[in-house]
Amino acid sequence: MADILHRIGATASPEDVYAALTTVDGLANWWTRETDGDPDPGGVLRFRFAQGGFDMKVLDAQPAERVLWEVVDGPEEWIGTHVRFDLKREGDFTIVLFRHEGWREPVEFMYHCSTKWATFLMSLKRLVETGTGEPAPHDVQISNWH
Amino acid sequence: MADILHRIGATASPEDVYAALTTVDGLANWWTRETDGDPDPGGVLRFRFAQGGFDMKVLDAQPAERVLWEVVDGPEEWIGTHVRFDLKREGDFTIVLFRHEGWREPVEFMYHCSTKWATFLMSLKRLVETGTGEPAPHDVQISNWH
Repeated sequence: MADILHRIGATASPEDVYAALTTVDGLANWWTRETDGDPDPGGVLRFRFAQGGFDMKVLDAQPAERVLWEVVDGPEEWIGTHVRFDLKREGDFTIVLFRHEGWREPVEFMYHCSTKWATFLMSLKRLVETGTGEPAPHDVQISNWH
Repeated sequence: MADILHRIGATASPEDVYAALTTVDGLANWWTRETDGDPDPGGVLRFRFAQGGFDMKVLDAQPAERVLWEVVDGPEEWIGTHVRFDLKREGDFTIVLFRHEGWREPVEFMYHCSTKWATFLMSLKRLVETGTGEPAPHDVQISNWH
């Protein structure tokens, strides 16, 4: 098993970061414009990109503290993995500890997704700090895999 | 044991990317301005930042293919870990598979370093594509830890 880990800090409240993780509008403004579904625990969120997408079941959502998803549809390597956001306050910053856990093998696609998650988390930071993120299809291109 | 993985692709030749990983001038233009030392196998490179730095022993350097360092001084969590860059050509892109391997525990500092490596690899991409990277102290701030 292998995990992707990231840490960012945004000068915004934990409540604002939590809203960006638990509303369709928030998610659409930093990850992908094509977001819909039910962001409440037990619901399923659908994220679509030019090359495909992911369906996430919301396993847990603790206001201003934690969001946990399980991947229920998408690329084979992602199915059954978990995506976790833990929030905490440090001074003027809300810290996001991100973990995409349960990859069976460190395949090349995992290397790609790790870098891509970093750029999307920087998009989340920008959204909550400035009001404007860089969601797909206007996301940062990192390679030939987009 | 835990590893940080990343994948970027740059529209530049493998030789140009390799030069950015194996010359003091190249490294100083994407990672940190304060770089010195000996980039040849068996040599030690010294990288310095406002908050400290890293000494890397060059274990292997295969032109246009691979660079491998061992961390011989720096933060306690880094000592003994390896940093690896594997290069390959895919169409117009040179792909960099990056691995910072051998972390003993997935501590919060590892989350931070994972995101920070992503932003520095994007700086490497920018350097080889445009001639201008974003090395420290002009690097992208990702949080209160810088």
